[in-house]
Amino acid sequence: MNFLEERIAKDGIIGPGNVLKVDSFLNHQMDVDLFQKMSKEWMKRFEGKNITKILTIEASGIGIASVVALDFHVPVVYAKKHKTINLIGDVYCTEVYSYTHQRQNHVVVEKRFLSSEDHILIIDDFLANGCALRGLLDLANQAGATVEGIGIVVEKGFQDGGKEIREMGYQLESLAIVESMDAETGSITFRE
Amino acid sequence: MNFLEERIAKDGIIGPGNVLKVDSFLNHQMDVDLFQKMSKEWMKRFEGKNITKILTIEASGIGIASVVALDFHVPVVYAKKHKTINLIGDVYCTEVYSYTHQRQNHVVVEKRFLSSEDHILIIDDFLANGCALRGLLDLANQAGATVEGIGIVVEKGFQDGGKEIREMGYQLESLAIVESMDAETGSITFRE
Repeated sequence: MNFLEERIAKDGIIGPGNVLKVDSFLNHQMDVDLFQKMSKEWMKRFEGKNITKILTIEASGIGIASVVALDFHVPVVYAKKHKTINLIGDVYCTEVYSYTHQRQNHVVVEKRFLSSEDHILIIDDFLANGCALRGLLDLANQAGATVEGIGIVVEKGFQDGGKEIREMGYQLESLAIVESMDAETGSITFRE
Repeated sequence: MNFLEERIAKDGIIGPGNVLKVDSFLNHQMDVDLFQKMSKEWMKRFEGKNITKILTIEASGIGIASVVALDFHVPVVYAKKHKTINLIGDVYCTEVYSYTHQRQNHVVVEKRFLSSEDHILIIDDFLANGCALRGLLDLANQAGATVEGIGIVVEKGFQDGGKEIREMGYQLESLAIVESMDAETGSITFRE
């Protein structure tokens, strides 16, 4: 197990329905020293890529993306969720279904902040079915930006998002890929 | 003008109704190198304080708080906004009115992540009337935590939030305090 898998095994909480709670260090309370280790790992995996901007989505991606951006010395842009698209300006907009909140969100980035000159690294905390990630890819594509890579903290390998995104040709680097979890025993297995 | 005031004067956009948009570097696109400079300034101003945790609120406070937390070597906890409080666990909860979205939000932190042993530095991007900040103070007080200080990026000095919070005895350090803005001329004046 790598440092992240060890932390998930130690502090993650497995709930019924393949729920994995990592809110004590990833997405409610945030261990930024752990984020820095994750960032160093992504720097290795995306070495040689010309990255000009980090793209993520509010809220849980923002902290991780900010720490990664310090290492890459580039700005972060975070996509914002809106229930309606009234009263917003000149934006790229896509729709993302949130399983957590069971509703369709409009997800937007102002056009000023993404362009065809950008080489983007997408960072997010979770990848399961890939809805949020496909939304971010759509926004990048609308801007004509180049997606240089995708860094995910925890991928649920038993769902199809990761497989589908890799088949589209993207370099997708998940730091921990969960193969299976058992809420009864609390055991978790990671992909080798 | 300090480095932040200069950046606001250069890249901030003043709109009618005392709106100050700083979304090109603070709260949509984020200049994390600027955040690091802000962090160094807060480290000076809160020197000698025993800080165990950074507390902020989603979404725009998260990036700044994460960069600050790297310097203070402590975790971040971000309060989450909920429209309803159904189906959430054992939390501290307060209500915050959002002028941006014109609605009352429940703002919650899980009890596991704040305790009477915590010495908290609150970080947020904006302070105007102080609604969000009072919500965070309420959460900290419910936990019995000690608030060692409050770091704000931009304070609207012509609204009462900052004055009231200082009168309550908190060490409130705003890196830029706007005294007045003029949407017609685009001019902005900072407190000395």
